[in-house]
Amino acid sequence: MKIYSGGRAPNPRRVSIFLAEKGIEIDVIDLDINKLEQREHDFVAKNPMRTVPVLELDDGTIIAESVAICRYFEEIHPEPALMGTTAVEKAIIEMWQRRIELKFMMPVAFSFRHLHPGAKHLEAVQLAEWGRLNQPAAARMMEFLDGELAGREFMAGDSFSIADITAIVAYQFLKPARIEVDRRLVHLRRWADAMLERPSVQW
Amino acid sequence: MKIYSGGRAPNPRRVSIFLAEKGIEIDVIDLDINKLEQREHDFVAKNPMRTVPVLELDDGTIIAESVAICRYFEEIHPEPALMGTTAVEKAIIEMWQRRIELKFMMPVAFSFRHLHPGAKHLEAVQLAEWGRLNQPAAARMMEFLDGELAGREFMAGDSFSIADITAIVAYQFLKPARIEVDRRLVHLRRWADAMLERPSVQW
Repeated sequence: MKIYSGGRAPNPRRVSIFLAEKGIEIDVIDLDINKLEQREHDFVAKNPMRTVPVLELDDGTIIAESVAICRYFEEIHPEPALMGTTAVEKAIIEMWQRRIELKFMMPVAFSFRHLHPGAKHLEAVQLAEWGRLNQPAAARMMEFLDGELAGREFMAGDSFSIADITAIVAYQFLKPARIEVDRRLVHLRRWADAMLERPSVQW
Repeated sequence: MKIYSGGRAPNPRRVSIFLAEKGIEIDVIDLDINKLEQREHDFVAKNPMRTVPVLELDDGTIIAESVAICRYFEEIHPEPALMGTTAVEKAIIEMWQRRIELKFMMPVAFSFRHLHPGAKHLEAVQLAEWGRLNQPAAARMMEFLDGELAGREFMAGDSFSIADITAIVAYQFLKPARIEVDRRLVHLRRWADAMLERPSVQW
């Protein structure tokens, strides 16, 4: 089994952090996504969506999409649980994972991909106005998350989960997306400081 | 337990179809999303994201996000499995669910929300250029899915799953998004015709 990854890019990092938290070691083949190696023929045959990370099992089965790869490892290696154990926990963690992905990570990614000169090769058309609309959207979500974190330690409750992983990866991507974290968001900053101390999160 | 739903809107439909496939009946409170009832105070207290559907358990626990609600029911009512049974099946179904949501349903939704006059109240700014960029993105994904469906009956393999639900809901939303299905996509059309015959999918 091996993973085709992409260094420090956000989605590859989600899986790397997830595996580090579970203490799973696996062969990693790093593609150079700045050189668009993920769009080369051999890799596109594995993942026609031309994205990393991709997990290849020993029988050749391909699993793409970071959350789907995490799901596979959660199933075969349940401890520590990062996606919940009871039905309610699983649903609540998935709710937060999705809220954070759709309303925080994606606006951050759109801001980066449509505004940063270094992302020009990633989009068919860079639409600066769309990038600019997404910056305040990400800021609003941070304000909301700050309020939530006033009452609990982690994004989805009292324990670390995949929702925290998605959130810290997006948080670390704010700078290239040119979005600032409001100094008043003390709960979000306390959470981020704690996340950045985890060995799994360190670059 | 009850669900706050939103009639024929895409995300409420994903959960309605999922529950119908499982044969689960549950109390439904339909909000009028054209009147923006999902943004009114009482409902925002339940789901600050101001989206439907929302599941409220008897102890008051709130689960928002359609896929998280589906996950809850998959856990408490596993048959028929719509999210896989083995680790590999679960991961592959999640991969397809995500690919279809992110690369098909979302471009369709962006096209609708940024181009249709009737969606003006849903977005702070309607950015027609963004809507127009998403129409060919949805069309490209349909072409890709057509190729996949040449070799199998359902989106994620040999049995009906949540990936088919996301796909047929997006497919039925092509018309308001003003995106046409190319006549040459015979496999996709065959799949869609079969989906539209399922009792769960009928309006």
